[in-house]
Amino acid sequence: MSTLKNSRLTGVLLDISGVLKDGGTVIAGSVEAVRKLREAGLKVRLVTNETQITRQTLAASLTDLGFCVQERDIIPPCPALITLLKRENMRPHLLVHPNVLPEFDGIDQNNPNCVVVSDAADNFTYENLNKAFRILIEMEKPRLFSLGRGRYYSDNGVLVLDVGVFTVALEYAAGIQSEVIGKPQPEFFMSALRDMRVEPQEAVMVGDDIVSDVGGAQHCGLTGVLVRTGKYRPSDENHPTVHPDAIVNDLAQAVDLILKSRQ
Amino acid sequence: MSTLKNSRLTGVLLDISGVLKDGGTVIAGSVEAVRKLREAGLKVRLVTNETQITRQTLAASLTDLGFCVQERDIIPPCPALITLLKRENMRPHLLVHPNVLPEFDGIDQNNPNCVVVSDAADNFTYENLNKAFRILIEMEKPRLFSLGRGRYYSDNGVLVLDVGVFTVALEYAAGIQSEVIGKPQPEFFMSALRDMRVEPQEAVMVGDDIVSDVGGAQHCGLTGVLVRTGKYRPSDENHPTVHPDAIVNDLAQAVDLILKSRQ
Repeated sequence: MSTLKNSRLTGVLLDISGVLKDGGTVIAGSVEAVRKLREAGLKVRLVTNETQITRQTLAASLTDLGFCVQERDIIPPCPALITLLKRENMRPHLLVHPNVLPEFDGIDQNNPNCVVVSDAADNFTYENLNKAFRILIEMEKPRLFSLGRGRYYSDNGVLVLDVGVFTVALEYAAGIQSEVIGKPQPEFFMSALRDMRVEPQEAVMVGDDIVSDVGGAQHCGLTGVLVRTGKYRPSDENHPTVHPDAIVNDLAQAVDLILKSRQ
Repeated sequence: MSTLKNSRLTGVLLDISGVLKDGGTVIAGSVEAVRKLREAGLKVRLVTNETQITRQTLAASLTDLGFCVQERDIIPPCPALITLLKRENMRPHLLVHPNVLPEFDGIDQNNPNCVVVSDAADNFTYENLNKAFRILIEMEKPRLFSLGRGRYYSDNGVLVLDVGVFTVALEYAAGIQSEVIGKPQPEFFMSALRDMRVEPQEAVMVGDDIVSDVGGAQHCGLTGVLVRTGKYRPSDENHPTVHPDAIVNDLAQAVDLILKSRQ
Protein backbone atom coordinates (compact mmCIF):
# COMPACT_ATOMS: atom_id res chain seq x y z
CA MET A 1 0.00 0.00 0.00
CA SER A 2 1.31 3.46 -0.89
CA THR A 3 1.58 6.42 1.49
CA LEU A 4 0.19 9.95 1.46
CA LYS A 5 2.83 12.68 1.42
CA ASN A 6 0.48 15.22 2.97
CA SER A 7 0.87 15.24 6.79
CA ARG A 8 -1.47 18.18 7.45
CA LEU A 9 -4.84 16.59 6.65
CA THR A 10 -7.73 17.83 8.80
CA GLY A 11 -10.66 17.59 6.39
CA VAL A 12 -11.95 14.64 4.38
CA LEU A 13 -14.36 14.77 1.44
CA LEU A 14 -16.00 11.46 0.53
CA ASP A 15 -17.96 10.54 -2.55
CA ILE A 16 -21.03 8.46 -1.66
CA SER A 17 -21.97 6.24 -4.60
CA GLY A 18 -19.19 3.74 -5.28
CA VAL A 19 -17.27 4.67 -2.10
CA LEU A 20 -19.69 4.29 0.84
CA LYS A 21 -22.20 2.16 -1.02
CA ASP A 22 -22.99 0.69 -4.41
CA GLY A 23 -26.71 1.03 -5.16
CA GLY A 24 -28.40 -0.17 -1.97
CA THR A 25 -25.42 -2.19 -0.68
CA VAL A 26 -22.77 -1.04 1.79
CA ILE A 27 -19.21 -1.37 0.49
CA ALA A 28 -17.46 -3.62 3.02
CA GLY A 29 -15.61 -1.74 5.77
CA SER A 30 -16.89 1.70 4.86
CA VAL A 31 -19.21 2.17 7.88
CA GLU A 32 -16.27 1.53 10.24
CA ALA A 33 -13.98 3.67 8.09
CA VAL A 34 -16.23 6.75 8.42
CA ARG A 35 -16.48 6.15 12.17
CA LYS A 36 -12.66 5.98 12.46
CA LEU A 37 -12.30 9.32 10.66
CA ARG A 38 -14.66 11.02 13.10
CA GLU A 39 -13.06 9.38 16.15
CA ALA A 40 -9.70 10.72 14.98
CA GLY A 41 -11.18 14.24 15.04
CA LEU A 42 -11.18 14.74 11.28
CA LYS A 43 -13.90 16.84 9.67
CA VAL A 44 -15.93 14.84 7.14
CA ARG A 45 -18.29 15.93 4.38
CA LEU A 46 -20.00 13.77 1.77
CA VAL A 47 -19.74 15.54 -1.60
CA THR A 48 -22.01 13.90 -4.13
CA ASN A 49 -23.47 14.56 -7.55
CA GLU A 50 -26.45 12.46 -6.49
CA THR A 51 -29.57 13.99 -8.03
CA GLN A 52 -32.01 11.09 -8.00
CA ILE A 53 -33.17 11.68 -4.43
CA THR A 54 -33.34 14.62 -2.02
CA ARG A 55 -30.65 15.27 0.62
CA GLN A 56 -33.11 14.27 3.33
CA THR A 57 -33.89 10.89 1.72
CA LEU A 58 -30.20 10.31 1.07
CA ALA A 59 -29.29 10.97 4.72
CA ALA A 60 -32.05 8.61 5.85
CA SER A 61 -30.92 5.83 3.50
CA LEU A 62 -27.29 6.15 4.68
CA THR A 63 -28.45 5.99 8.30
CA ASP A 64 -30.45 2.86 7.45
CA LEU A 65 -27.25 1.33 6.05
CA GLY A 66 -25.48 1.96 9.39
CA PHE A 67 -23.59 5.19 8.63
CA CYS A 68 -23.54 7.87 11.31
CA VAL A 69 -24.37 10.77 9.00
CA GLN A 70 -26.40 13.97 9.42
CA GLU A 71 -28.23 15.70 6.59
CA ARG A 72 -25.95 18.75 7.01
CA ASP A 73 -22.85 16.60 6.33
CA ILE A 74 -24.08 15.88 2.79
CA ILE A 75 -23.30 18.38 0.02
CA PRO A 76 -25.27 17.64 -3.17
CA PRO A 77 -25.44 20.07 -6.13
CA CYS A 78 -29.17 20.88 -5.91
CA PRO A 79 -29.06 23.55 -3.16
CA ALA A 80 -26.27 25.44 -5.01
CA LEU A 81 -28.33 25.29 -8.20
CA ILE A 82 -31.50 26.56 -6.49
CA THR A 83 -29.54 29.52 -5.07
CA LEU A 84 -28.18 30.31 -8.55
CA LEU A 85 -31.61 30.01 -10.24
CA LYS A 86 -33.14 32.43 -7.71
CA ARG A 87 -30.24 34.90 -7.91
CA GLU A 88 -30.40 35.08 -11.72
CA ASN A 89 -34.22 34.99 -12.07
CA MET A 90 -34.07 31.73 -13.98
CA ARG A 91 -37.27 29.83 -14.82
CA PRO A 92 -36.05 26.30 -15.54
CA HIS A 93 -37.42 23.60 -17.78
CA LEU A 94 -36.54 20.50 -15.75
CA LEU A 95 -35.14 17.29 -17.22
CA VAL A 96 -34.65 15.61 -13.84
CA HIS A 97 -35.62 12.55 -11.84
CA PRO A 98 -39.22 12.70 -10.52
CA ASN A 99 -37.88 12.14 -6.97
CA VAL A 100 -36.15 15.54 -6.90
CA LEU A 101 -39.02 17.62 -8.29
CA PRO A 102 -39.97 18.75 -4.74
CA GLU A 103 -36.60 20.56 -4.49
CA PHE A 104 -37.85 22.98 -7.18
CA ASP A 105 -41.24 23.66 -5.56
CA GLY A 106 -40.59 27.35 -4.93
CA ILE A 107 -39.18 28.02 -8.40
CA ASP A 108 -41.28 29.52 -11.21
CA GLN A 109 -41.20 27.13 -14.16
CA ASN A 110 -43.52 29.00 -16.54
CA ASN A 111 -42.15 30.27 -19.86
CA PRO A 112 -38.70 28.74 -19.21
CA ASN A 113 -35.51 30.72 -19.86
CA CYS A 114 -33.10 27.86 -19.12
CA VAL A 115 -32.92 24.06 -19.02
CA VAL A 116 -31.74 22.03 -16.03
CA VAL A 117 -30.50 18.48 -16.58
CA SER A 118 -29.71 16.05 -13.77
CA ASP A 119 -29.54 12.27 -13.49
CA ALA A 120 -33.05 11.67 -14.84
CA ALA A 121 -32.41 7.94 -15.50
CA ASP A 122 -35.50 6.41 -17.15
CA ASN A 123 -36.78 9.94 -17.71
CA PHE A 124 -34.09 10.28 -20.40
CA THR A 125 -36.54 9.32 -23.14
CA TYR A 126 -36.24 10.45 -26.78
CA GLU A 127 -39.35 12.56 -26.24
CA ASN A 128 -38.03 14.31 -23.12
CA LEU A 129 -34.63 14.93 -24.71
CA ASN A 130 -36.37 16.38 -27.78
CA LYS A 131 -38.44 18.69 -25.55
CA ALA A 132 -35.38 20.02 -23.72
CA PHE A 133 -33.52 20.46 -27.03
CA ARG A 134 -36.37 22.42 -28.65
CA ILE A 135 -36.58 24.79 -25.69
CA LEU A 136 -32.83 25.40 -25.88
CA ILE A 137 -32.69 25.98 -29.62
CA GLU A 138 -35.56 28.45 -29.53
CA MET A 139 -33.77 30.64 -26.95
CA GLU A 140 -31.82 33.69 -28.05
CA LYS A 141 -29.12 32.94 -25.47
CA PRO A 142 -29.59 29.27 -24.49
CA ARG A 143 -28.54 28.38 -20.94
CA LEU A 144 -28.17 24.76 -19.90
CA PHE A 145 -27.37 23.96 -16.26
CA SER A 146 -26.04 20.47 -15.67
CA LEU A 147 -25.75 18.79 -12.28
CA GLY A 148 -22.43 17.09 -13.02
CA ARG A 149 -20.44 15.80 -15.96
CA GLY A 150 -20.13 12.15 -14.84
CA ARG A 151 -19.93 9.56 -17.63
CA TYR A 152 -21.33 6.56 -15.75
CA TYR A 153 -21.70 5.06 -12.33
CA SER A 154 -22.20 1.67 -10.78
CA ASP A 155 -25.73 0.82 -9.68
CA ASN A 156 -25.67 -2.41 -7.69
CA GLY A 157 -22.68 -3.59 -9.71
CA VAL A 158 -24.11 -2.62 -13.11
CA LEU A 159 -22.68 0.38 -14.99
CA VAL A 160 -25.30 2.92 -16.06
CA LEU A 161 -25.06 6.21 -17.95
CA ASP A 162 -24.76 9.37 -15.87
CA VAL A 163 -25.96 12.94 -16.40
CA GLY A 164 -22.78 14.03 -18.21
CA VAL A 165 -23.63 11.84 -21.19
CA PHE A 166 -26.97 13.56 -21.73
CA THR A 167 -25.39 16.94 -21.04
CA VAL A 168 -22.89 16.55 -23.89
CA ALA A 169 -25.74 15.23 -26.08
CA LEU A 170 -27.77 18.42 -25.51
CA GLU A 171 -24.64 20.58 -25.86
CA TYR A 172 -23.91 19.01 -29.25
CA ALA A 173 -27.53 19.22 -30.42
CA ALA A 174 -27.96 22.89 -29.55
CA GLY A 175 -24.35 23.93 -30.27
CA ILE A 176 -23.80 25.31 -26.77
CA GLN A 177 -21.74 24.80 -23.60
CA SER A 178 -23.48 23.89 -20.35
CA GLU A 179 -22.79 25.41 -16.95
CA VAL A 180 -21.94 22.63 -14.48
CA ILE A 181 -23.05 22.68 -10.85
CA GLY A 182 -21.38 19.86 -8.89
CA LYS A 183 -18.15 17.91 -9.18
CA PRO A 184 -15.72 18.59 -10.91
CA GLN A 185 -16.66 22.30 -10.76
CA PRO A 186 -14.07 24.03 -8.50
CA GLU A 187 -16.70 26.14 -6.71
CA PHE A 188 -18.41 22.94 -5.56
CA PHE A 189 -15.28 21.60 -3.86
CA MET A 190 -14.50 25.02 -2.41
CA SER A 191 -17.99 25.37 -0.88
CA ALA A 192 -17.46 22.03 0.90
CA LEU A 193 -14.08 23.23 2.22
CA ARG A 194 -15.56 26.54 3.42
CA ASP A 195 -18.26 24.57 5.21
CA MET A 196 -15.51 22.66 7.10
CA ARG A 197 -13.27 25.75 7.46
CA VAL A 198 -10.40 23.81 5.98
CA GLU A 199 -7.84 24.94 3.37
CA PRO A 200 -7.40 22.89 0.16
CA GLN A 201 -3.91 21.74 1.15
CA GLU A 202 -5.36 20.37 4.43
CA ALA A 203 -8.02 18.29 2.67
CA VAL A 204 -8.29 14.98 0.86
CA MET A 205 -10.99 13.75 -1.51
CA VAL A 206 -11.72 10.02 -1.78
CA GLY A 207 -13.71 8.95 -4.84
CA ASP A 208 -14.24 6.28 -7.49
CA ASP A 209 -14.39 8.76 -10.41
CA ILE A 210 -10.89 9.43 -11.71
CA VAL A 211 -11.94 12.67 -13.45
CA SER A 212 -14.77 14.22 -11.43
CA ASP A 213 -13.59 13.19 -7.95
CA VAL A 214 -9.80 12.84 -8.11
CA GLY A 215 -8.97 15.22 -10.97
CA GLY A 216 -11.51 17.83 -9.84
CA ALA A 217 -10.18 17.83 -6.27
CA GLN A 218 -6.52 17.94 -7.30
CA HIS A 219 -7.30 20.88 -9.58
CA CYS A 220 -8.38 22.79 -6.44
CA GLY A 221 -5.22 21.86 -4.53
CA LEU A 222 -6.64 18.93 -2.54
CA THR A 223 -5.04 15.52 -2.21
CA GLY A 224 -6.93 13.04 -4.42
CA VAL A 225 -7.34 9.33 -3.62
CA LEU A 226 -8.92 6.82 -6.00
CA VAL A 227 -10.66 3.70 -4.65
CA ARG A 228 -10.95 0.44 -6.58
CA THR A 229 -14.69 0.15 -5.84
CA GLY A 230 -17.87 1.38 -7.57
CA LYS A 231 -17.28 2.43 -11.15
CA TYR A 232 -13.47 1.97 -10.88
CA ARG A 233 -11.90 0.24 -13.87
CA PRO A 234 -8.27 -0.92 -14.19
CA SER A 235 -7.73 1.47 -17.12
CA ASP A 236 -8.29 4.39 -14.67
CA GLU A 237 -4.81 3.70 -13.27
CA ASN A 238 -3.30 4.78 -16.60
CA HIS A 239 -5.45 7.85 -17.13
CA PRO A 240 -3.79 10.22 -19.63
CA THR A 241 -4.12 13.38 -17.52
CA VAL A 242 -5.17 12.51 -13.95
CA HIS A 243 -2.64 10.89 -11.59
CA PRO A 244 -4.11 10.16 -8.12
CA ASP A 245 -1.97 10.84 -5.04
CA ALA A 246 -2.83 7.29 -4.01
CA ILE A 247 -4.84 4.36 -5.35
CA VAL A 248 -6.30 2.00 -2.75
CA ASN A 249 -8.64 -0.97 -2.71
CA ASP A 250 -11.47 0.69 -0.83
CA LEU A 251 -12.44 3.39 1.66
CA ALA A 252 -11.13 1.32 4.58
CA GLN A 253 -7.64 1.38 3.05
CA ALA A 254 -7.98 5.07 2.19
CA VAL A 255 -8.80 5.88 5.81
CA ASP A 256 -5.84 3.84 7.06
CA LEU A 257 -3.60 5.88 4.74
CA ILE A 258 -5.11 9.17 5.90
CA LEU A 259 -4.73 8.32 9.59
CA LYS A 260 -1.17 7.06 9.06
CA SER A 261 -0.21 10.32 7.31
CA ARG A 262 -1.05 12.24 10.51
CA GLN A 263 1.10 10.15 12.87
CA MET B 1 -30.58 35.77 -55.74
CA SER B 2 -26.86 35.04 -55.88
CA THR B 3 -25.02 33.22 -58.69
CA LEU B 4 -22.87 30.12 -58.83
CA LYS B 5 -19.32 30.71 -60.02
CA ASN B 6 -18.91 27.11 -61.18
CA SER B 7 -19.87 26.82 -64.90
CA ARG B 8 -18.88 23.15 -65.28
CA LEU B 9 -21.62 21.44 -63.27
CA THR B 10 -22.74 18.06 -64.62
CA GLY B 11 -23.69 16.19 -61.44
CA VAL B 12 -26.11 17.15 -58.68
CA LEU B 13 -26.36 15.59 -55.22
CA LEU B 14 -29.57 16.28 -53.34
CA ASP B 15 -30.39 15.72 -49.69
CA ILE B 16 -33.89 14.27 -49.27
CA SER B 17 -35.26 15.25 -45.86
CA GLY B 18 -35.67 19.02 -45.67
CA VAL B 19 -34.92 19.53 -49.39
CA LEU B 20 -37.33 17.32 -51.34
CA LYS B 21 -39.76 16.79 -48.49
CA ASP B 22 -40.31 17.54 -44.81
CA GLY B 23 -41.68 14.48 -43.06
CA GLY B 24 -44.49 13.27 -45.38
CA THR B 25 -45.00 16.62 -47.14
CA VAL B 26 -43.47 17.69 -50.46
CA ILE B 27 -41.54 20.97 -50.25
CA ALA B 28 -43.25 23.25 -52.80
CA GLY B 29 -41.62 23.23 -56.24
CA SER B 30 -39.20 20.40 -55.57
CA VAL B 31 -40.91 17.77 -57.78
CA GLU B 32 -40.65 20.14 -60.78
CA ALA B 33 -37.11 21.12 -59.79
CA VAL B 34 -35.86 17.51 -59.92
CA ARG B 35 -37.60 17.04 -63.30
CA LYS B 36 -35.90 20.18 -64.68
CA LEU B 37 -32.47 18.88 -63.64
CA ARG B 38 -33.03 15.62 -65.49
CA GLU B 39 -34.47 17.35 -68.56
CA ALA B 40 -31.33 19.50 -68.69
CA GLY B 41 -29.25 16.32 -68.89
CA LEU B 42 -27.71 16.61 -65.42
CA LYS B 43 -26.93 13.48 -63.42
CA VAL B 44 -28.80 13.36 -60.13
CA ARG B 45 -28.30 11.28 -56.99
CA LEU B 46 -30.10 11.54 -53.67
CA VAL B 47 -27.54 11.29 -50.85
CA THR B 48 -29.25 10.80 -47.54
CA ASN B 49 -28.40 9.81 -43.98
CA GLU B 50 -31.94 8.44 -43.73
CA THR B 51 -31.81 5.29 -41.59
CA GLN B 52 -35.38 4.96 -40.40
CA ILE B 53 -36.58 3.10 -43.50
CA THR B 54 -35.04 0.89 -46.18
CA ARG B 55 -33.95 2.26 -49.58
CA GLN B 56 -36.84 0.39 -51.22
CA THR B 57 -39.44 1.95 -48.93
CA LEU B 58 -37.85 5.36 -49.35
CA ALA B 59 -37.97 5.13 -53.17
CA ALA B 60 -41.61 4.06 -53.03
CA SER B 61 -42.55 6.93 -50.69
CA LEU B 62 -40.83 9.48 -52.96
CA THR B 63 -42.64 8.05 -55.99
CA ASP B 64 -45.92 8.37 -54.07
CA LEU B 65 -45.10 12.04 -53.47
CA GLY B 66 -44.71 12.56 -57.23
CA PHE B 67 -40.94 12.39 -57.65
CA CYS B 68 -39.55 10.48 -60.61
CA VAL B 69 -36.93 8.52 -58.67
CA GLN B 70 -35.50 4.99 -58.96
CA GLU B 71 -34.17 3.00 -56.02
CA ARG B 72 -30.69 3.06 -57.60
CA ASP B 73 -30.64 6.90 -57.54
CA ILE B 74 -30.78 6.87 -53.74
CA ILE B 75 -27.54 6.55 -51.78
CA PRO B 76 -28.17 5.89 -48.07
CA PRO B 77 -25.39 4.86 -45.65
CA CYS B 78 -26.71 1.36 -44.83
CA PRO B 79 -25.33 -0.51 -47.89
CA ALA B 80 -21.84 0.95 -47.32
CA LEU B 81 -22.02 -0.10 -43.68
CA ILE B 82 -23.13 -3.65 -44.51
CA THR B 83 -20.19 -3.99 -46.92
CA LEU B 84 -17.79 -2.77 -44.21
CA LEU B 85 -19.25 -5.09 -41.53
CA LYS B 86 -18.85 -8.11 -43.82
CA ARG B 87 -15.33 -7.15 -44.93
CA GLU B 88 -14.08 -6.75 -41.35
CA ASN B 89 -15.99 -9.72 -39.84
CA MET B 90 -17.95 -7.44 -37.56
CA ARG B 91 -20.83 -8.79 -35.47
CA PRO B 92 -22.84 -5.71 -34.58
CA HIS B 93 -25.01 -4.90 -31.62
CA LEU B 94 -27.69 -2.76 -33.27
CA LEU B 95 -29.11 0.43 -31.79
CA VAL B 96 -31.26 1.22 -34.84
CA HIS B 97 -34.83 1.86 -35.90
CA PRO B 98 -36.95 -1.34 -36.06
CA ASN B 99 -37.80 -0.54 -39.71
CA VAL B 100 -34.22 -1.09 -40.88
CA LEU B 101 -33.57 -4.35 -39.02
CA PRO B 102 -34.23 -6.35 -42.25
CA GLU B 103 -31.14 -4.69 -43.81
CA PHE B 104 -29.01 -6.63 -41.31
CA ASP B 105 -30.65 -10.01 -41.90
CA GLY B 106 -27.55 -11.70 -43.30
CA ILE B 107 -25.22 -10.36 -40.60
CA ASP B 108 -24.22 -12.46 -37.56
CA GLN B 109 -25.19 -10.53 -34.44
CA ASN B 110 -24.14 -13.06 -31.79
CA ASN B 111 -21.41 -12.14 -29.31
CA PRO B 112 -21.07 -8.60 -30.73
CA ASN B 113 -17.66 -7.05 -31.44
CA CYS B 114 -18.97 -3.61 -32.40
CA VAL B 115 -21.96 -1.32 -31.92
CA VAL B 116 -23.95 0.29 -34.75
CA VAL B 117 -26.00 3.40 -34.02
CA SER B 118 -28.42 4.95 -36.49
CA ASP B 119 -31.48 7.19 -36.18
CA ALA B 120 -33.32 4.91 -33.74
CA ALA B 121 -35.81 7.65 -32.71
CA ASP B 122 -38.09 6.30 -29.94
CA ASN B 123 -35.72 3.36 -29.61
CA PHE B 124 -33.24 5.78 -27.99
CA THR B 125 -34.40 4.80 -24.50
CA TYR B 126 -32.23 5.01 -21.37
CA GLU B 127 -32.26 1.21 -21.25
CA ASN B 128 -31.13 0.77 -24.88
CA LEU B 129 -28.43 3.43 -24.54
CA ASN B 130 -27.18 1.70 -21.37
CA LYS B 131 -27.05 -1.64 -23.20
CA ALA B 132 -25.01 -0.23 -26.08
CA PHE B 133 -22.69 1.57 -23.64
CA ARG B 134 -22.04 -1.56 -21.56
CA ILE B 135 -21.16 -3.58 -24.67
CA LEU B 136 -18.71 -0.86 -25.75
CA ILE B 137 -17.02 -0.44 -22.39
CA GLU B 138 -16.50 -4.18 -22.00
CA MET B 139 -14.63 -4.43 -25.34
CA GLU B 140 -10.86 -4.40 -25.40
CA LYS B 141 -10.90 -2.22 -28.52
CA PRO B 142 -14.38 -0.67 -28.69
CA ARG B 143 -15.69 0.07 -32.19
CA LEU B 144 -18.73 2.26 -32.67
CA PHE B 145 -20.11 2.76 -36.19
CA SER B 146 -22.43 5.71 -36.57
CA LEU B 147 -24.69 6.35 -39.56
CA GLY B 148 -24.17 10.11 -39.60
CA ARG B 149 -23.29 12.93 -37.25
CA GLY B 150 -26.41 15.06 -37.79
CA ARG B 151 -27.54 17.16 -34.83
CA TYR B 152 -31.23 17.43 -35.65
CA TYR B 153 -33.70 17.41 -38.50
CA SER B 154 -37.17 18.68 -39.25
CA ASP B 155 -39.98 16.12 -39.05
CA ASN B 156 -43.16 17.69 -40.40
CA GLY B 157 -41.96 21.09 -39.23
CA VAL B 158 -40.87 19.95 -35.76
CA LEU B 159 -37.15 19.71 -34.94
CA VAL B 160 -36.11 16.32 -33.53
CA LEU B 161 -32.74 14.97 -32.39
CA ASP B 162 -30.69 13.07 -34.95
CA VAL B 163 -28.24 10.17 -34.67
CA GLY B 164 -25.20 12.41 -34.14
CA VAL B 165 -26.46 13.46 -30.73
CA PHE B 166 -26.59 9.88 -29.48
CA THR B 167 -23.29 9.13 -31.16
CA VAL B 168 -21.46 11.84 -29.20
CA ALA B 169 -23.29 10.65 -26.07
CA LEU B 170 -21.92 7.10 -26.50
CA GLU B 171 -18.48 8.47 -27.48
CA TYR B 172 -18.32 10.52 -24.28
CA ALA B 173 -19.62 7.67 -22.11
CA ALA B 174 -17.14 5.08 -23.39
CA GLY B 175 -14.27 7.53 -23.99
CA ILE B 176 -13.96 6.62 -27.69
CA GLN B 177 -14.32 8.04 -31.20
CA SER B 178 -16.94 6.61 -33.56
CA GLU B 179 -16.41 5.75 -37.20
CA VAL B 180 -18.99 7.61 -39.30
CA ILE B 181 -20.64 6.09 -42.38
CA GLY B 182 -22.66 8.73 -44.26
CA LYS B 183 -22.52 12.49 -44.62
CA PRO B 184 -20.23 14.33 -43.83
CA GLN B 185 -17.74 11.45 -44.29
CA PRO B 186 -15.71 12.21 -47.48
CA GLU B 187 -15.89 8.59 -48.71
CA PHE B 188 -19.67 8.83 -48.74
CA PHE B 189 -19.71 11.84 -51.08
CA MET B 190 -16.96 10.31 -53.23
CA SER B 191 -18.91 7.05 -53.68
CA ALA B 192 -21.89 9.06 -54.97
CA LEU B 193 -19.59 10.92 -57.41
CA ARG B 194 -18.03 7.65 -58.61
CA ASP B 195 -21.53 6.31 -59.18
CA MET B 196 -22.27 9.28 -61.48
CA ARG B 197 -18.74 9.30 -63.01
CA VAL B 198 -18.40 12.96 -62.15
CA GLU B 199 -15.41 14.80 -60.65
CA PRO B 200 -15.87 16.83 -57.42
CA GLN B 201 -15.32 20.16 -59.22
CA GLU B 202 -18.16 19.23 -61.63
CA ALA B 203 -20.66 18.53 -58.86
CA VAL B 204 -22.92 20.48 -56.53
CA MET B 205 -24.58 19.37 -53.29
CA VAL B 206 -27.88 20.93 -52.21
CA GLY B 207 -28.83 20.45 -48.58
CA ASP B 208 -30.46 21.94 -45.48
CA ASP B 209 -27.65 20.90 -43.10
CA ILE B 210 -24.95 23.57 -43.05
CA VAL B 211 -22.34 21.17 -41.61
CA SER B 212 -23.12 17.67 -42.92
CA ASP B 213 -24.40 18.64 -46.39
CA VAL B 214 -22.72 21.92 -47.31
CA GLY B 215 -19.52 21.72 -45.27
CA GLY B 216 -19.04 18.01 -45.98
CA ALA B 217 -19.44 18.50 -49.74
CA GLN B 218 -17.18 21.57 -49.88
CA HIS B 219 -14.52 19.63 -47.97
CA CYS B 220 -14.48 17.17 -50.91
CA GLY B 221 -14.18 19.95 -53.51
CA LEU B 222 -17.87 20.14 -54.46
CA THR B 223 -19.93 23.30 -54.71
CA GLY B 224 -22.22 23.53 -51.67
CA VAL B 225 -25.66 25.18 -51.70
CA LEU B 226 -27.77 25.71 -48.57
CA VAL B 227 -31.59 25.85 -48.82
CA ARG B 228 -33.79 27.76 -46.40
CA THR B 229 -36.15 24.78 -45.92
CA GLY B 230 -36.22 21.80 -43.54
CA LYS B 231 -33.99 22.26 -40.52
CA TYR B 232 -32.54 25.55 -41.84
CA ARG B 233 -32.23 28.27 -39.23
CA PRO B 234 -31.25 31.94 -39.84
CA SER B 235 -28.15 31.50 -37.63
CA ASP B 236 -26.82 28.99 -40.22
CA GLU B 237 -26.03 31.98 -42.49
CA ASN B 238 -23.41 33.14 -39.99
CA HIS B 239 -21.84 29.74 -39.32
CA PRO B 240 -18.34 30.16 -37.86
CA THR B 241 -16.59 27.76 -40.25
CA VAL B 242 -18.89 26.82 -43.16
CA HIS B 243 -19.63 29.41 -45.87
CA PRO B 244 -22.00 28.05 -48.57
CA ASP B 245 -21.30 28.88 -52.22
CA ALA B 246 -24.92 30.03 -52.35
CA ILE B 247 -27.90 30.29 -50.01
CA VAL B 248 -31.33 30.03 -51.65
CA ASN B 249 -34.92 29.83 -50.50
CA ASP B 250 -35.59 26.29 -51.69
CA LEU B 251 -34.64 23.56 -54.16
CA ALA B 252 -36.53 25.33 -56.98
CA GLN B 253 -34.26 28.37 -56.60
CA ALA B 254 -31.18 26.13 -56.28
CA VAL B 255 -32.02 24.42 -59.57
CA ASP B 256 -32.56 27.78 -61.30
CA LEU B 257 -29.07 28.81 -60.12
CA ILE B 258 -27.52 25.54 -61.30
CA LEU B 259 -29.12 25.74 -64.74
CA LYS B 260 -28.18 29.43 -65.09
CA SER B 261 -24.53 28.64 -64.28
CA ARG B 262 -24.37 26.36 -67.34
CA GLN B 263 -25.66 28.88 -69.85
